[in-house]
Amino acid sequence: MSRLGVAILGATGMVGQIYVRMLSAHPWFEIKAVTGNSTVGKTLREAYRGKGHVPEKYADLEVLPSDPSKIDADLIFSCLPTKSSREVEPKFAAAGFPVVSDSSAHRYWPDVPLIIPEVNPEHLDLIDVQRKRRGWDGYIVTTPNCTTVGFALPLKPLVDDFGLKYVNIVTMQAISGAGYNGVPSMAILGNIIPYIDGEEPKVAEEPRKILGTLTNGEVKPLDVEIDATCMRVPTVVGHLEAVHVELGRDASVEEVMDSMAGFTGLPQKLELPTAPRRPIQVFVDDERPQPRIDAEAGDVPGMVVYTGRVRKGRRPGTVMFVTLSHNLIRGAAGSAILTAELLYALRRLR
Amino acid sequence: MSRLGVAILGATGMVGQIYVRMLSAHPWFEIKAVTGNSTVGKTLREAYRGKGHVPEKYADLEVLPSDPSKIDADLIFSCLPTKSSREVEPKFAAAGFPVVSDSSAHRYWPDVPLIIPEVNPEHLDLIDVQRKRRGWDGYIVTTPNCTTVGFALPLKPLVDDFGLKYVNIVTMQAISGAGYNGVPSMAILGNIIPYIDGEEPKVAEEPRKILGTLTNGEVKPLDVEIDATCMRVPTVVGHLEAVHVELGRDASVEEVMDSMAGFTGLPQKLELPTAPRRPIQVFVDDERPQPRIDAEAGDVPGMVVYTGRVRKGRRPGTVMFVTLSHNLIRGAAGSAILTAELLYALRRLR
Amino acid sequence: MSRLGVAILGATGMVGQIYVRMLSAHPWFEIKAVTGNSTVGKTLREAYRGKGHVPEKYADLEVLPSDPSKIDADLIFSCLPTKSSREVEPKFAAAGFPVVSDSSAHRYWPDVPLIIPEVNPEHLDLIDVQRKRRGWDGYIVTTPNCTTVGFALPLKPLVDDFGLKYVNIVTMQAISGAGYNGVPSMAILGNIIPYIDGEEPKVAEEPRKILGTLTNGEVKPLDVEIDATCMRVPTVVGHLEAVHVELGRDASVEEVMDSMAGFTGLPQKLELPTAPRRPIQVFVDDERPQPRIDAEAGDVPGMVVYTGRVRKGRRPGTVMFVTLSHNLIRGAAGSAILTAELLYALRRLR
Amino acid sequence: MSRLGVAILGATGMVGQIYVRMLSAHPWFEIKAVTGNSTVGKTLREAYRGKGHVPEKYADLEVLPSDPSKIDADLIFSCLPTKSSREVEPKFAAAGFPVVSDSSAHRYWPDVPLIIPEVNPEHLDLIDVQRKRRGWDGYIVTTPNCTTVGFALPLKPLVDDFGLKYVNIVTMQAISGAGYNGVPSMAILGNIIPYIDGEEPKVAEEPRKILGTLTNGEVKPLDVEIDATCMRVPTVVGHLEAVHVELGRDASVEEVMDSMAGFTGLPQKLELPTAPRRPIQVFVDDERPQPRIDAEAGDVPGMVVYTGRVRKGRRPGTVMFVTLSHNLIRGAAGSAILTAELLYALRRLR
Repeated sequence: MSRLGVAILGATGMVGQIYVRMLSAHPWFEIKAVTGNSTVGKTLREAYRGKGHVPEKYADLEVLPSDPSKIDADLIFSCLPTKSSREVEPKFAAAGFPVVSDSSAHRYWPDVPLIIPEVNPEHLDLIDVQRKRRGWDGYIVTTPNCTTVGFALPLKPLVDDFGLKYVNIVTMQAISGAGYNGVPSMAILGNIIPYIDGEEPKVAEEPRKILGTLTNGEVKPLDVEIDATCMRVPTVVGHLEAVHVELGRDASVEEVMDSMAGFTGLPQKLELPTAPRRPIQVFVDDERPQPRIDAEAGDVPGMVVYTGRVRKGRRPGTVMFVTLSHNLIRGAAGSAILTAELLYALRRLR
Repeated sequence: MSRLGVAILGATGMVGQIYVRMLSAHPWFEIKAVTGNSTVGKTLREAYRGKGHVPEKYADLEVLPSDPSKIDADLIFSCLPTKSSREVEPKFAAAGFPVVSDSSAHRYWPDVPLIIPEVNPEHLDLIDVQRKRRGWDGYIVTTPNCTTVGFALPLKPLVDDFGLKYVNIVTMQAISGAGYNGVPSMAILGNIIPYIDGEEPKVAEEPRKILGTLTNGEVKPLDVEIDATCMRVPTVVGHLEAVHVELGRDASVEEVMDSMAGFTGLPQKLELPTAPRRPIQVFVDDERPQPRIDAEAGDVPGMVVYTGRVRKGRRPGTVMFVTLSHNLIRGAAGSAILTAELLYALRRLR
Repeated sequence: MSRLGVAILGATGMVGQIYVRMLSAHPWFEIKAVTGNSTVGKTLREAYRGKGHVPEKYADLEVLPSDPSKIDADLIFSCLPTKSSREVEPKFAAAGFPVVSDSSAHRYWPDVPLIIPEVNPEHLDLIDVQRKRRGWDGYIVTTPNCTTVGFALPLKPLVDDFGLKYVNIVTMQAISGAGYNGVPSMAILGNIIPYIDGEEPKVAEEPRKILGTLTNGEVKPLDVEIDATCMRVPTVVGHLEAVHVELGRDASVEEVMDSMAGFTGLPQKLELPTAPRRPIQVFVDDERPQPRIDAEAGDVPGMVVYTGRVRKGRRPGTVMFVTLSHNLIRGAAGSAILTAELLYALRRLR
Repeated sequence: MSRLGVAILGATGMVGQIYVRMLSAHPWFEIKAVTGNSTVGKTLREAYRGKGHVPEKYADLEVLPSDPSKIDADLIFSCLPTKSSREVEPKFAAAGFPVVSDSSAHRYWPDVPLIIPEVNPEHLDLIDVQRKRRGWDGYIVTTPNCTTVGFALPLKPLVDDFGLKYVNIVTMQAISGAGYNGVPSMAILGNIIPYIDGEEPKVAEEPRKILGTLTNGEVKPLDVEIDATCMRVPTVVGHLEAVHVELGRDASVEEVMDSMAGFTGLPQKLELPTAPRRPIQVFVDDERPQPRIDAEAGDVPGMVVYTGRVRKGRRPGTVMFVTLSHNLIRGAAGSAILTAELLYALRRLR
């Protein structure tokens, strides 16, 4: 089987580096092109200079501009900044490319699927609505905000098994979530910033779409209220989140742990290459999960969401837990690659 | 006016060092004796070796054993570990000493006041109950857990102005809260531990007593439910806490901010030396408060509790905010000194 | 005595904040004006928003452009970036202002004094040369690079007592040395960068001028070879430096320690307000000095240079030690203020 | 080929965990037994509780006491603390086991080889001297201190190509080098400790033995003087070292870089499983190597020593560079495994 050629838009940032690493030995996909902005014309090796390692295999790829006419690929991954992606991604979709994007630019468009592959693969049917409505040969599929994935995924089995009325979430987000230059060290060394610009509305809204129901070409959001407080903490990778939920009915700690730990989705059924055997793993040890130790663990490193500290709240039907996910892998590149694998398995890629 | 002589039990730990520093130029109190355990016989200078600075004035004090018969003082501050304090503090009280203690050992005794000077100074009347019941010449007064102070203090004006039904709190606690050797660097550098042994029950229970009502020699706890998740983060001082409350009635963000910012208590009225002009300061800037910048700020460094990010929750009557307090000062030594000043002003010290 | 009015050019950066704090209660100087670049027109309070505390006294000062015609002051402190200072400082000097600058722009001009007040106050006589040569009513005096001060100061007594042939220095520099936005957290959290752009040549050259001899209106540099390796480490303030020297003659550890610890200079003799009683303090405890604990310690916080670990090297005449200095205070604002106090005491300010 | 059974003494510490991970898929060795102290009777999974991941394959191994009569293995790896290893290792050697030890206990015994496999494999001939002298059926082979490896390895080609007279080294050592509980977070967060107890004498002495010459059953140390300053810094893994050397003759930067980069040893020739293709890699980029990015990089993760910043010093024949090595892998478990592979290839294991 010959592998599909992929292009990565915005390949020289933090998330781009993860794509390149994850695709350096992928069974189905091979990088054919990478794009950037200030580094156009350099090789990937030069673009990463001083910041990390690039697999030899792709080190000499030249950084191209993000222009559909310059790119030859079967599939586009986009991790462009919001502004650029707003402009660039529709051009690629119009030019016939399937685009899987980490960006927030089109997540909230009603005809753009916002996908966690284990949670709402059926939302991919929006692609047909989108292509028809916009007259595109290609399409855009999006993955959620890095913070959203970490709790929307473990909420899925709870919604299914117990119902869900309310969520209060406090996040402790790693510096890599803001990009290489996003957080000055003076701001965060031995410190916490109790605010992340623009994050809380995303976190409060995205799970409603993801956990919603697709009927008649439209996603009806899940009827759940979400309060969020998003903080930046001095960890390198892994967003840790303290979640407090009110379920639809009273449930024991054991029921909740079993619900999460037993959960699998379509990617597991299809045995997709980047799908972990179990997408949610539940710690019983009080001291876990921990970002530095657990974020990149698991059978598919960085793709498992770890939860722990499952406890009942004082009020009936309320449950507390913490959840940890790798913000660059499960929260970005890994989710996009798994989504692309799903598209491939569902014969939605050429 | 000649100053009262004080002894500090457990003076060689993290909190002890703060006492020594805060009392190096106190208008009313002067350190006459310090006690320790493994460092008995050394000078304070030797006991602090390698760990910090000790004011010249007290550097040559000899570390004594924690034995009432060896101590000559008008007032005892105790920051002993829980186990030792359980045994030692009653001996001092029985021997006639007023003891102000940071330890958790006696906080939950019904006849021991658990005091935040601005919040419940009237609970000091329990002293009489305690002395009578136990036949002591002295007494024990306690201050709350370092985490409790940070949110119980800003809850006070909310209770008064709006009523309070429910609290969900997620804490991000500094490493100094566990003592010098409490948290291995391997456990916390670039990491978070989502659990602090024994902390959550204290945090859930103490505010109920502090905010309770003293009637007929007994504290009736405030009827409020508190859920807590306590985490250790890589900050040095300052516990940052994300608080979500349900008030007794709907209140606007402005009302809540004004309620906190305008709050003062008896220490402010009495102009006690360690009382900040305003015990709660409210940031409007989204990015504050921050532990490294704000924990030790204020007109009385470390005694101001900083809140910020006051917002309404999705459900009626709910409000969110973050709060920051210096865990070693307002959360321990400073609270105890302010409590002692209150006792002094109320003529409850000899 | 009425106080001199001072202006701070570049008051809104990291060093500027230290000037404002140090001058909030200075006996001789009072801030009359502050300048900035992107924050012109804002108040200091607004300019510091989210980054720190500004003394109430100066919080409402309006940030002005760095233009001599807009400034009314008896003395100028400049902590402008190199580029701006190259252009701006001569304008102020030409317009008649005495300028004391932290910037590297004019440090190496032969007629500009490069001053550590305890080390080479006599170099201030270059002012006359400078004014005459350039036809200025005012003048420029500079202070060294933050890294230079930390070892050039303790080298002074060694030069005087034993002679000095060679220095090898390895520096571990705090992130604040690069400005608030200078070091991305992704670059330094749990990491070290073994290079600081442009730093090593300064460190290798400046001590030669500072320790040189002024004769006939010219500084003859000290004949010493200096090798330097400059690294960025995850500390907030305090540059720690490992120094290896070859002295002019063999000296015992005790002699070296005594030489440093006993050293005082003109600022001590004149009892200048910002002069510490002893500019160099020598630890005997192996584990000191430490940046977080010691950088801001001392009778004048941040002005004492702490040395320790004085040992003999394997080769005759060689000695090793470590030295720590506060990069923003002794390494910048504090040195400049002390230099200005010296100018004042020597009647070189109007 | 059936694999050799190995036992790991002290398997539950930081280095032990690395052994277990590195041997979870080793082509020649298989773990048959693990020993510990306070965790005897627990499984490895339980012993690592809260601290990290253990490969499923070995998770249920029971921790045994370090007693030769309880162990069935062809080869012993020891990462016991110095004290225990002093007592335990000779017992194992006497009982007929080949012991490869990370501990410092026997490194300086004249008949015990101190091995860096690429540097002095011929020193393994000391085994025969040792067995004969002590009447042992087994033997002890040691690997160097974690700090020594990082610079003794890159010194080897310099010794060979240019000669070596003098070394001055300043180390910035990661917290993991002191064991999980070795460095309190209060001591190191945002801080540096300019001293590591007992480290400098090892660093100054070990390279002399390693780089020495074996003649007539005795190692004649290399005649080189080494001055060392060892510091603890807030990095998790990777010891970064600033090295200043005086070579036997003047050499250009290019010569030095080529000498290091081109170096290979017997492990490369024998293509041992844990031997990196090139043991020393040389960065030309000024900002590298960096501990967090580079320590665990390379074709055999953690086994490559990275150097960089090669420059000439002011004095003739002097050269400066920095070097980085993974303290737990190349500095401990990895070196020992590579040494065992060498013993195996040289038919010195049964």
